[in-house]
Amino acid sequence: MRDPEVLVRFRPSGREAYVLPGVRLIEAAAEVDLIVPSPCGGEGTCGKCRMRVVAGAAAPTSMEKDRLAADELAAGWRLACQTSVHGPMEVEVPTTSRSGEHQILVRTESSNVAASDDPPVRTQRFEVAPPRRGDDAPDSLRLEQALGGGPLEIDLPLLRELPDRLRAAAYRGTAVLTGRRLLDLEPDETPEVFAIALDLGTTTLVGELLNQRTGESLAIEARLNPQTRYGDDVLSRILYARQEDDGPKRLQQAVVEAVNDMIGALCRKADVLRRCIYNVTLAGNTTMQQLFCGVDVRPLGQLPFAPAAARATCCLAVELGLDVHPRAIAYVMPVIGGFVGGDTVAGLLATELADVDGPAMLVDIGTNGEIVLHTDGQLWATSTAAGPALEGARISCGMRGCAGAVEKVATVDGQLRIGVIGDAPPAGVCGSGLIDAAAELLRYGILSPQGQLLAADQLPCDAPVDLMRRLQVDRQGKPIFVLAEASESAEGRAIALTQRDFRELQLAAGAMRAGAILLLHRAGIRSEQLREVLVAGGFGNFIRRSNAERIGLLPPQLEHRRIRFVGNASLAGARRTAMSQQARQTAEQLARRTEHIDLSTEPNFQEVFADAMIFP
Amino acid sequence: MRDPEVLVRFRPSGREAYVLPGVRLIEAAAEVDLIVPSPCGGEGTCGKCRMRVVAGAAAPTSMEKDRLAADELAAGWRLACQTSVHGPMEVEVPTTSRSGEHQILVRTESSNVAASDDPPVRTQRFEVAPPRRGDDAPDSLRLEQALGGGPLEIDLPLLRELPDRLRAAAYRGTAVLTGRRLLDLEPDETPEVFAIALDLGTTTLVGELLNQRTGESLAIEARLNPQTRYGDDVLSRILYARQEDDGPKRLQQAVVEAVNDMIGALCRKADVLRRCIYNVTLAGNTTMQQLFCGVDVRPLGQLPFAPAAARATCCLAVELGLDVHPRAIAYVMPVIGGFVGGDTVAGLLATELADVDGPAMLVDIGTNGEIVLHTDGQLWATSTAAGPALEGARISCGMRGCAGAVEKVATVDGQLRIGVIGDAPPAGVCGSGLIDAAAELLRYGILSPQGQLLAADQLPCDAPVDLMRRLQVDRQGKPIFVLAEASESAEGRAIALTQRDFRELQLAAGAMRAGAILLLHRAGIRSEQLREVLVAGGFGNFIRRSNAERIGLLPPQLEHRRIRFVGNASLAGARRTAMSQQARQTAEQLARRTEHIDLSTEPNFQEVFADAMIFP
Repeated sequence: MRDPEVLVRFRPSGREAYVLPGVRLIEAAAEVDLIVPSPCGGEGTCGKCRMRVVAGAAAPTSMEKDRLAADELAAGWRLACQTSVHGPMEVEVPTTSRSGEHQILVRTESSNVAASDDPPVRTQRFEVAPPRRGDDAPDSLRLEQALGGGPLEIDLPLLRELPDRLRAAAYRGTAVLTGRRLLDLEPDETPEVFAIALDLGTTTLVGELLNQRTGESLAIEARLNPQTRYGDDVLSRILYARQEDDGPKRLQQAVVEAVNDMIGALCRKADVLRRCIYNVTLAGNTTMQQLFCGVDVRPLGQLPFAPAAARATCCLAVELGLDVHPRAIAYVMPVIGGFVGGDTVAGLLATELADVDGPAMLVDIGTNGEIVLHTDGQLWATSTAAGPALEGARISCGMRGCAGAVEKVATVDGQLRIGVIGDAPPAGVCGSGLIDAAAELLRYGILSPQGQLLAADQLPCDAPVDLMRRLQVDRQGKPIFVLAEASESAEGRAIALTQRDFRELQLAAGAMRAGAILLLHRAGIRSEQLREVLVAGGFGNFIRRSNAERIGLLPPQLEHRRIRFVGNASLAGARRTAMSQQARQTAEQLARRTEHIDLSTEPNFQEVFADAMIFP
Repeated sequence: MRDPEVLVRFRPSGREAYVLPGVRLIEAAAEVDLIVPSPCGGEGTCGKCRMRVVAGAAAPTSMEKDRLAADELAAGWRLACQTSVHGPMEVEVPTTSRSGEHQILVRTESSNVAASDDPPVRTQRFEVAPPRRGDDAPDSLRLEQALGGGPLEIDLPLLRELPDRLRAAAYRGTAVLTGRRLLDLEPDETPEVFAIALDLGTTTLVGELLNQRTGESLAIEARLNPQTRYGDDVLSRILYARQEDDGPKRLQQAVVEAVNDMIGALCRKADVLRRCIYNVTLAGNTTMQQLFCGVDVRPLGQLPFAPAAARATCCLAVELGLDVHPRAIAYVMPVIGGFVGGDTVAGLLATELADVDGPAMLVDIGTNGEIVLHTDGQLWATSTAAGPALEGARISCGMRGCAGAVEKVATVDGQLRIGVIGDAPPAGVCGSGLIDAAAELLRYGILSPQGQLLAADQLPCDAPVDLMRRLQVDRQGKPIFVLAEASESAEGRAIALTQRDFRELQLAAGAMRAGAILLLHRAGIRSEQLREVLVAGGFGNFIRRSNAERIGLLPPQLEHRRIRFVGNASLAGARRTAMSQQARQTAEQLARRTEHIDLSTEPNFQEVFADAMIFP
């Protein structure tokens, strides 16, 4: 008899998970995409996954008794990685246990991939007659003939064990293959093998565990890219790699460790053994991929920013330091250019941009903004240094899109309203909040199209009083716009945007827009001809179309209905290439077909960029 | 102006080398295939390569002064690895500096291979425009386009360094490739790359250094296979591997170390750097190959003796522990069956047996005797435990074919004459001496066709008196045949052959002959139909056709002119596969085309074997 599932409701999000009794609370949270920090890997030692069980709390474990005070335990505080669900539960998730949730939301329900008939790794049952007198054919030939399809490649480490392995398994079991290359023999007759798809973001790493056979998504995990401690954007990391002797090694180790940690968490969530993972597929921008692979990134820091590899890098996962099956294969996406990398190729693959009937554009918003234009079978790609402003960096009170970030700004009945991630007191402003605020201020004439924050005495008289009240001056007498007073804020410091902050936004949006316009020029297309504009990036899900248009983030003259948010297209593309050889070939073709445009060499670059800087 | 070459004459062999002044004496010896022991690798520390320079001695070096006494130096004793040739020289090579010479003679003049237009490793010059503004294509793509021919595979370790390497070399140099896989970049524009061909014999290892481009043989080296200390034949080594926990590892390390040592010596002889060797090609019997590769050999020790791998093993040389270029490729020949291995495939390739017009046979005489029959496009192969008797083992006074071995026995004017390798006092008898002795005794009726050594009173009256005199009895009163009296011998002990010795020979020759006959039966061919019988093995060079026929080593009814000695066919085949991809494909096809016959399953095996035991 099967246990009935029980309901776990999470506050304040109201998300509801139905889980079997016995699962750990952290797993229930993962079911509904609540990404809970667990730097200790669920060992119960870091205490970062604290949650308050309002109803249905289990008795505390000894680990919890060590980590939490008696009054906390009495109030229902538990460690989500230690406590289990036994019946219906009501759980309050504190802000601190939700950091990163905003940016790394990836919809689990949409991430199942179709099973493919040409998976990069496949299994095949075999049964061979053991050698006997009169039939002394070599072991490898027996296996080859049983599997059919021609000569089999067997790597030396496996060949060394082959005689023993075949005999121990009585000449039957399952071969795990990539193409004609034998990766391992599983004694089990119906083993499941798994793949990992990874989006190596400059800021965020997202990993997904897939059933290699069915394409089912079994778990998803995200982490802050620990390389951020060496620099916020790719150029600062390249600089670190150039300047420090063991910089490249440190950068590589940091991200590889994080990925291994993530793989461990994925395996625990899905109850899968690391050694059953036979395929790791990675997509990232050119710098992230080269750093991950340990490839010299120095040329990416100087003109003309030429990458090392064009084609996909195929190797053993162990060569990258990944802790999965020792003969698992790794696949790192092909790249288009120094700043248009494997994540863009993955995005092209996932969105099928090249198959859109009519001119279409892919805009991937991240620390770099990548733009690809497709028309009449031709593909052009470029990247712009959208910069970290849209991720909250280089903004006076900027922060990433995590708990405490002002993510939404709107004027309702003449009053400014702000939305804060995690219903917490505001601690700063993230990219979408910055875009919203700029759009509102442009709407009411408080911010000029040239990006100038007007002084209170220059304002049009129809501006709402609440907005005018918030237009103040700093100690130097320069205008600032206050989103939250010091008294309302988490840290007792006003959350305000300065003239320089709007200039940063202007630069970021201008860069994205100029890139889009220049690609359109190049192709001789007007923006109103675009049939679709696909906006990708974890970030892209949260930008309000009207505000994005108001600040000129996207090309002008676009109908709203032509804009489609496609989420994390890089991860989606990594999933496809994890599941299909054909997708790998397509990725290679897309990368080679796409012409890489260096915007700075475009003749009217300066002019277009200057124009794009003006808010529409 | 070029220095004129000077003559170095070696005694007692009378071999003459013409060399340029300045070369070391050990190199001059190598020129004429005098294999001089140099376990210290020519460092001057072991003193094993002592030779007496009778005329033209150079002043002793300080190393020689350390190693040799003043009176020895005065008498002309030098270390061949230290002293140099300055003018014409007359050199006496003592027996101790010639050990192993007999067995491992390989003709240097015949070992140049034709340059092939499809070498496994090839070089290609390239020159690429460096990336510049407006041309930021990835490094790998630049290289790929410069080299032409489609996508290039670059292993991760090389890719990691690619940007730096290309820039350091100003985007020009030479690519070293295997197929479409890039092995390395050489900054030099006309680098030479080298290959090693190796014959992994059960008893003897022979290595040859080849210029990969021209096929020129640059040096040859031989060593006793150090695995012999774990057993004389393959079965005893398999037994050791089965019984000792780290047996396989010890066996592997022993032979890999010896090969690395040999490669070092080859490099010194030819003044080539180890890192310029990009290709190592190995041929050995199935057990030798599996032990070398670290592949489990246990199944080779039990019925039905099935090997692990059928096809060639292709890997990086470093995976085998070889100290050559870190990305050099290694190729281990495909095998036919458990006891018909890569050496036989190499022999088939080198002799082109399958191309002989009419039925033909290859007989490779070694510790195992391998026989291959070709007729009408069909190939059958078998092996027989010829056993170590033909290499002097299991013979009461047997020894390997090295200095002091009775290698030749003949009756001249009624007197028995023996030839001893190295003109030394006889110390034992080797295979060819044993065959000669048996043939002589059969000729005079002293040995019966049944292999019985007759008592003196049973002898026919026309037997030469000297032979009858040598027919004596041992302490147990059993008949023995004395080849050399105690007073004549090196060790003061008579060199005599016993009844049991002749039985061993009878078994060995019978096994070879039975194998040949059974293969002929299988193919429905009579031996007189054979157009050619190719006899391979270092050993094969020294067997006198008439005596081999007399004792029935080869199939009956063969005309002498049909017998051709082909020398070390295994090494010759390894050379071909080192030089040509096509040869590798042919080797693979030959291995798969050849039907492996287990003689013991042939219905009339016992009968044929019993018949073959009778001397013809």
